[in-house]
Amino acid sequence: MSEFSVQDVAFMQMALDLAQQGQFTTTPNPSVGCVLVKAGRIVGKGFHFRAGEPHAEVMALREAGENARGATAYVTLEPCSHFGRTPPCAKGLIEAGVVKVISAMHDPNPQVAGKGLQMLAENGIESAVGLLAEKAEWLNRGFLKRMRTGKPFVQLKMAMSLDGRTALANGESKWITNALSRADVQVERAKASAILSASQTVIADDPLLNVRWEQLPEPVQQAYSVENLRQPVRVILDSQHQVTSTKRLFKIDAPVWLVSKTARDLADYPVFCKQILLADTSHYLQDLMFELGQRQINTVWIEAGATLAGALIEQNLVDELIIYTAPKLLGDEARGLCKLPHLTQLADATLWKLHSIERLGDDIKSIYHPIVMEPKC
Amino acid sequence: MSEFSVQDVAFMQMALDLAQQGQFTTTPNPSVGCVLVKAGRIVGKGFHFRAGEPHAEVMALREAGENARGATAYVTLEPCSHFGRTPPCAKGLIEAGVVKVISAMHDPNPQVAGKGLQMLAENGIESAVGLLAEKAEWLNRGFLKRMRTGKPFVQLKMAMSLDGRTALANGESKWITNALSRADVQVERAKASAILSASQTVIADDPLLNVRWEQLPEPVQQAYSVENLRQPVRVILDSQHQVTSTKRLFKIDAPVWLVSKTARDLADYPVFCKQILLADTSHYLQDLMFELGQRQINTVWIEAGATLAGALIEQNLVDELIIYTAPKLLGDEARGLCKLPHLTQLADATLWKLHSIERLGDDIKSIYHPIVMEPKC
Repeated sequence: MSEFSVQDVAFMQMALDLAQQGQFTTTPNPSVGCVLVKAGRIVGKGFHFRAGEPHAEVMALREAGENARGATAYVTLEPCSHFGRTPPCAKGLIEAGVVKVISAMHDPNPQVAGKGLQMLAENGIESAVGLLAEKAEWLNRGFLKRMRTGKPFVQLKMAMSLDGRTALANGESKWITNALSRADVQVERAKASAILSASQTVIADDPLLNVRWEQLPEPVQQAYSVENLRQPVRVILDSQHQVTSTKRLFKIDAPVWLVSKTARDLADYPVFCKQILLADTSHYLQDLMFELGQRQINTVWIEAGATLAGALIEQNLVDELIIYTAPKLLGDEARGLCKLPHLTQLADATLWKLHSIERLGDDIKSIYHPIVMEPKC
Repeated sequence: MSEFSVQDVAFMQMALDLAQQGQFTTTPNPSVGCVLVKAGRIVGKGFHFRAGEPHAEVMALREAGENARGATAYVTLEPCSHFGRTPPCAKGLIEAGVVKVISAMHDPNPQVAGKGLQMLAENGIESAVGLLAEKAEWLNRGFLKRMRTGKPFVQLKMAMSLDGRTALANGESKWITNALSRADVQVERAKASAILSASQTVIADDPLLNVRWEQLPEPVQQAYSVENLRQPVRVILDSQHQVTSTKRLFKIDAPVWLVSKTARDLADYPVFCKQILLADTSHYLQDLMFELGQRQINTVWIEAGATLAGALIEQNLVDELIIYTAPKLLGDEARGLCKLPHLTQLADATLWKLHSIERLGDDIKSIYHPIVMEPKC
């Protein structure tokens, strides 16, 4: 990356840090940050906070005012070129007199996809792309997956003992992991567009599946005030219509989408509860992901049992495994992590790439990505 | 630890690094390092290499010669006070004119246990104990455990998939972990006084259970030449006399101890094969550990199946779990990590403390210690 200087890297990192401030709220939009620099001095900073509100570039231009003239813009995603709920940012940068735009990456959104940069070029503005692209990609892996494939980025969360067990034989699983892990789950839920679970889990544990602000770690609370709290959509697979309106899910005023093959009467359910009807096919889970993509879900955080987990893995629908391992041994009789088809050769085992490991007290959080990202089917 | 200066810490760290050079060879002795410092300058360095050969202090005094007079000695373990295969080191330090001795920790060996420091004090030599004690303790946790309890330090090695499975349902387990993990296992074996396994494993896999120098990582090979290679004792639980003399174990010229309740005829076995006879009691495994302690085994590295692993854990005989986790999912039908008694409450699960995590490529090596170290029985 010889075309970029050390200063360029530092300013783009700043733009990424800004972008991250929108990570809990921008869905279905991407998180974007922008820094305007003139003669080595920062003259404007901004980030996108919420869909419908100004984009990062607009915020930075507002702060810079007249100082934007002659400045270089560092943006974590190619400036948009289309009229959405706000006017195109490329146009804003041109009108403000910015002379150069450095983007971390192209925007795969078909409404943008190079057109932003083209608009800049047509107005004589220099541009460069690819600075800290990997970090920018990571930050918006949900939005980017949806733009590229029409499906959300699927995160499968698993909490297990040292020996890969999620619950005792009698089902007891509260709590395998420690308080730090559980707080981290709250952060991950807070970032997700939707939380997916199955009726079996709802029936067995009667969970809320929401974000509980008071359980977020303090630094997150400081950056994300309770007034701005966004609840992810709770998506429940419930083909047998077993999730009754008395469940605790419905005590929280946030969307619930019940997924089934046949329609049910929603009269007893709160107004925030909707249903998704999907035909019964052999690629039901895949269809569900496309349906969620259509509904602008960027990331799905899945908390489910061994059956759904196994089915998602088997069908190559998982983009990320997030495993919390607690320092306990539960033994062979306890419940396993995922039901998978019988294997006769190790070479046939699903393979993953270790992205990162992190200590959470005596628990370990490990993140894995599949070696094959796209479904076979 | 205000009694120690930054210089003291640096010199003791150097002594620890020296001590570590003996880690593959000193058993049944501890690994000890010594640095002699006079007027801020190192005048002698030494470490213990092999039982019967000079102790660390002697090596350092030899290097220092006349410069030892007036020097401070940094030793990773209290200098010995008894005549063993070599004369007492405390005496050597006194005769050489050393004026101060800083030890990382006391030697719990009943033949030493404070007597070394007492001998120094009686000769007007100042001494201090406790500098980097935790690191010194870690380095010799095998020797120290044996001195304190009469039993070796028991390390249970487990290699598993992400979902805690050690083999497919049909038994296939070659190879779950990657080459880096397998090389690390060679290093751990090389440090161990003994490797313990069970007849089932020997029958199923026909393993060598030795150290293969050519499989050690290059930095280890450079520090530990093939001529000095020490093979751990291979201890095999074989109550049914199923381990015949045709097994590959016996192709390697290194001790094998077959453990059973009744004697067998060893005529067909090589001379390096011995037997240990143990009465059949309810605390058979505990008795075995005392027997191995008697035989000067400091550390036992265990590679075994779910049954022996479970029994050792259940009886609180494991001092360290070393888990290699490979990025594969094998599913619920594959073989579990350890057989443990049925649990009805999570509160009854065996608890562990996470000591460390390390990436080995896409594998994870994690080390755990039990919350309760001593057996209940």
